[in-house]
Amino acid sequence: MSKKNLSNAVCPIARSLSCAGDTWSLLILRDAIAGLTRFDDFRKSLDIAPTMLTQRLAALTEEGLLERRQYSERPPREEYILTEAGRGFAPVLVMLGAWGGKYRCDGETTQLIDANTGLEIVPVVIDSVTGSKISDLSIRLAIPKSGS
Amino acid sequence: MSKKNLSNAVCPIARSLSCAGDTWSLLILRDAIAGLTRFDDFRKSLDIAPTMLTQRLAALTEEGLLERRQYSERPPREEYILTEAGRGFAPVLVMLGAWGGKYRCDGETTQLIDANTGLEIVPVVIDSVTGSKISDLSIRLAIPKSGS
Repeated sequence: MSKKNLSNAVCPIARSLSCAGDTWSLLILRDAIAGLTRFDDFRKSLDIAPTMLTQRLAALTEEGLLERRQYSERPPREEYILTEAGRGFAPVLVMLGAWGGKYRCDGETTQLIDANTGLEIVPVVIDSVTGSKISDLSIRLAIPKSGS
Repeated sequence: MSKKNLSNAVCPIARSLSCAGDTWSLLILRDAIAGLTRFDDFRKSLDIAPTMLTQRLAALTEEGLLERRQYSERPPREEYILTEAGRGFAPVLVMLGAWGGKYRCDGETTQLIDANTGLEIVPVVIDSVTGSKISDLSIRLAIPKSGS
């Protein structure tokens, strides 16, 4: 399945992965959500080859998850700002982190702390219609007749 | 950053991505959660090259997200069963689907339906400690002194 086919898939998971379905893209979004904007800061955080970082930033910009913004005219310098769609990956990343914190928990790991209570956040996915945990629901898939 | 470095990272998101941080692995987990177990069924669902599928199934098995189980002795045939850790990716995939359903919603897409109410599920991540939406919280990162 090509990336083009993924982006047209009836499955919205496949569509998301066609935008940011690789480790680097997801880690760049993580760092952008944590506040990084500049090429050198991403490069240092990720220990990524510059050519790879350039390519991934361009792809995320093309997908509308990041936007370029000039922060210096002389010399010309650009930074990368999250769009609303880019920020929309935060819940995905939070749940990826919850998985790692539960199933790959050797040694110390970064934790998300509720700044108001000082307590560690325990993320869980609920259905906001009924308030039930997703894991407690009986779910069926409604698949459009046009697709598979 | 190599896959080995990712798996030892202090960031639990990086650790998760070292286990299943590519499009194929995440789509295989999606299909396994939807009930697929057999090589040919994954292959047809994903339209993936057999060598690629073999490699990804082996990697997911090595990471403990899938387990091989023989379902026929003559001829010998194996299927792939989700482990608890593999099933633990369901919330990640649900939130990936929610992103795609919101930001890449052209045409019809597959929907998750609550079988009890018949209504579409609207997934949201909350902190189960306080019940607040993650997006409403003021979050700070607690980073171990040993890492970055």
